Amino acid sequence: VRYDTVTFLSDYGRADEFVGVVHSVLRNFAPDARVIDLSHDIEPHDVRGAGLMLARAAPQLAPGVVLGVVDPGVGTDRRGVAIEIGDGSSVLVGPDNGLFAHVVAMCGGPDRVVSLTNEDFHLDSTSSTFDGRDVFAPVAAHLCQGVDLEEFGEVVDPGTMLPGTMPILTNEDHDLLAEVLWVDRFGNAQLNMASTDLDPTTDTFGLVIKGRTRTVGLAGTFGDVAPGKVGLITDAHGLLALVIQRGSAAEELELRTGSEVRISPLDKSTGSPVGPTKVTLGPSVNRPGGDR
Amino acid sequence: VRYDTVTFLSDYGRADEFVGVVHSVLRNFAPDARVIDLSHDIEPHDVRGAGLMLARAAPQLAPGVVLGVVDPGVGTDRRGVAIEIGDGSSVLVGPDNGLFAHVVAMCGGPDRVVSLTNEDFHLDSTSSTFDGRDVFAPVAAHLCQGVDLEEFGEVVDPGTMLPGTMPILTNEDHDLLAEVLWVDRFGNAQLNMASTDLDPTTDTFGLVIKGRTRTVGLAGTFGDVAPGKVGLITDAHGLLALVIQRGSAAEELELRTGSEVRISPLDKSTGSPVGPTKVTLGPSVNRPGGDR
Amino acid sequence: VRYDTVTFLSDYGRADEFVGVVHSVLRNFAPDARVIDLSHDIEPHDVRGAGLMLARAAPQLAPGVVLGVVDPGVGTDRRGVAIEIGDGSSVLVGPDNGLFAHVVAMCGGPDRVVSLTNEDFHLDSTSSTFDGRDVFAPVAAHLCQGVDLEEFGEVVDPGTMLPGTMPILTNEDHDLLAEVLWVDRFGNAQLNMASTDLDPTTDTFGLVIKGRTRTVGLAGTFGDVAPGKVGLITDAHGLLALVIQRGSAAEELELRTGSEVRISPLDKSTGSPVGPTKVTLGPSVNRPGGDR
Repeated sequence: VRYDTVTFLSDYGRADEFVGVVHSVLRNFAPDARVIDLSHDIEPHDVRGAGLMLARAAPQLAPGVVLGVVDPGVGTDRRGVAIEIGDGSSVLVGPDNGLFAHVVAMCGGPDRVVSLTNEDFHLDSTSSTFDGRDVFAPVAAHLCQGVDLEEFGEVVDPGTMLPGTMPILTNEDHDLLAEVLWVDRFGNAQLNMASTDLDPTTDTFGLVIKGRTRTVGLAGTFGDVAPGKVGLITDAHGLLALVIQRGSAAEELELRTGSEVRISPLDKSTGSPVGPTKVTLGPSVNRPGGDR
Repeated sequence: VRYDTVTFLSDYGRADEFVGVVHSVLRNFAPDARVIDLSHDIEPHDVRGAGLMLARAAPQLAPGVVLGVVDPGVGTDRRGVAIEIGDGSSVLVGPDNGLFAHVVAMCGGPDRVVSLTNEDFHLDSTSSTFDGRDVFAPVAAHLCQGVDLEEFGEVVDPGTMLPGTMPILTNEDHDLLAEVLWVDRFGNAQLNMASTDLDPTTDTFGLVIKGRTRTVGLAGTFGDVAPGKVGLITDAHGLLALVIQRGSAAEELELRTGSEVRISPLDKSTGSPVGPTKVTLGPSVNRPGGDR
Repeated sequence: VRYDTVTFLSDYGRADEFVGVVHSVLRNFAPDARVIDLSHDIEPHDVRGAGLMLARAAPQLAPGVVLGVVDPGVGTDRRGVAIEIGDGSSVLVGPDNGLFAHVVAMCGGPDRVVSLTNEDFHLDSTSSTFDGRDVFAPVAAHLCQGVDLEEFGEVVDPGTMLPGTMPILTNEDHDLLAEVLWVDRFGNAQLNMASTDLDPTTDTFGLVIKGRTRTVGLAGTFGDVAPGKVGLITDAHGLLALVIQRGSAAEELELRTGSEVRISPLDKSTGSPVGPTKVTLGPSVNRPGGDR
């Protein structure tokens, strides 16, 4: 046994039997592998959302095989791939559509990539609609059992894989133009920025959402945000999130994935916009006022 | 250990603790068995939907015990049964209400059937509302541990088990009258027919749903269906499904389980209905024009 | 290996990756432990609902570690605790907010309690928003691996733990004033009372909900309730539940968790309220008329 854990992510939902059938195939071909369901409630075909989820989870994932099936192109000529990373500690298996781009980059880039063309390792099926069952799960299982990556198909140039997409933080005058990456179950809204992107001379910011302005404070934890108030805290993944203690910031602010948020540094005592800041030019191109 | 996998299907949902409690009982009595959740989001009391799900999953299910609990008759005098199939390779455990009829037929019929009347293998409980916990799970666990089928109760005549129900494909003139068996998460609508039921002289069909007619083409895969168009493809279970590439056919066509669909063969070039076809009489009673 | 099962309950939902990430942490630190998901669909921050769920499941739970994360106070100064019960057969790990109070009481009270202050057993994280991942899961895993409870922090007085809350059944004249504890997926509405709390001289009761009165009968099982009628039966946890055979009593009666229900004993033959009953004074303070 080469790998003993398969981490499985999909947009299959749990109402149909797709997830259970993939578990069954894994059980049949790799009986000793443990399967961890990361989530199967990715919005149908939301490749970006799934890629961000994998990136958030990456630091804790058990070494082994990652089976990711969010595959709007199933039944077209999009490639299936297996991507070895971390000096062979893990292999990512799924469609070549950008799903794994962020996690591969976080883990130091790909070691080897193969295109899953060897049908000896696929289930016999006349169907081309359920590659999770017919292609990706049996490949994942055989990887667990010790079959070498290059048995599954021809080695391909990693540079030919589809990239992932990520919204870029930009600045305009003193303001940061951020975007909501993710709204979690509790209504916390993660932004595409870290606290280090904020003006370091203040902890008070104007927040402009759909033309409406609020004042928010940068806080250490949920407990530092006054009850009923919106705060900015560093979340469990090192990014800033808009939160309300024991409430839903996304509901209060009408935010969803992709919503735009403008953040303006305010003077702590007066509440008025701060003038041009005198921060040293650093490596971050996104620091507000950094180009002055 | 006789069986090491329990495949578990129910209409318990995941919001309550029912599924977890059944897992706990299995863990207590069969500590080495692995449990695969097929789905627990069957609509409450939808025995037919659960039976069709089991049939779709059957070819991939790991040998072992199948625990199926969709049981609108719990607390009445309906029987609980254990059904041995495949020369003892698997045993199906649950209520005798037709839930297992399709999968038993697919697997060559029942070897032995017992009625679960021996309370020595049930949990002590004054309740009669949670047989998944009190009867079916402990029986499944003891089957894994090697207890013989006939220990659980008296052998019964398989012919006394309740049958499953399945809508029959019919024909009227040149048309096929089909029914939607299942709408999956992606909005693909599976019909109760295969491509071999279609008129083989054309690949263009008129689709009549609630009085409205559309033209659809028979396609090989999702990729062969033009963007935005509805196509007919053979799905992952060998049946025809109405699909839209990267979209929901069920939403577009307002289909749900049980919806009626009329399919008329059209002339490929003219788009007008084809005349009486001259197909050879074959074993399928449902082939259009087969009785001419 | 000291414990080989972790039973995991949370309000994380399954749409985000929280549950999968906790499984990954458990897999990394306690590779041989089996994880049973009790439910993750507790309403966000519903500590009482989660506590009642644990209490309902307690009799079947596999011995081992129970990881319970419903934690509206994460990021505040609320304590994390590990509570040993059952002479060390199980340890409950999670926030000190009353979540475990009912199950601890059912299991004979706590043996030892520690506050989880030893950060050697926590994940390195600058975040204070995901203690399930950073604190509770690694502690649960290390408990499985045999680390002694007192390694995780200082022993604390069990009497300082937050209590759970439970609505009390009260009586008024001949009537019982009950409350709906839980509505399950099938619409059965569990009350905070047992059949032994009812007037034993009749099996017919008036049910007053939001000012509207119905007559209901005490029944043995679902099968004893006439089709379409509401009945009172003893549910799988020994409490009374309002049910409809193959239907949703909660929907029919517009009940939800916390709804008030007044129950009046009626004369079986006349249907009119019974006079002062002559039951013997017993230990139950809630028996109607018990104080006459």
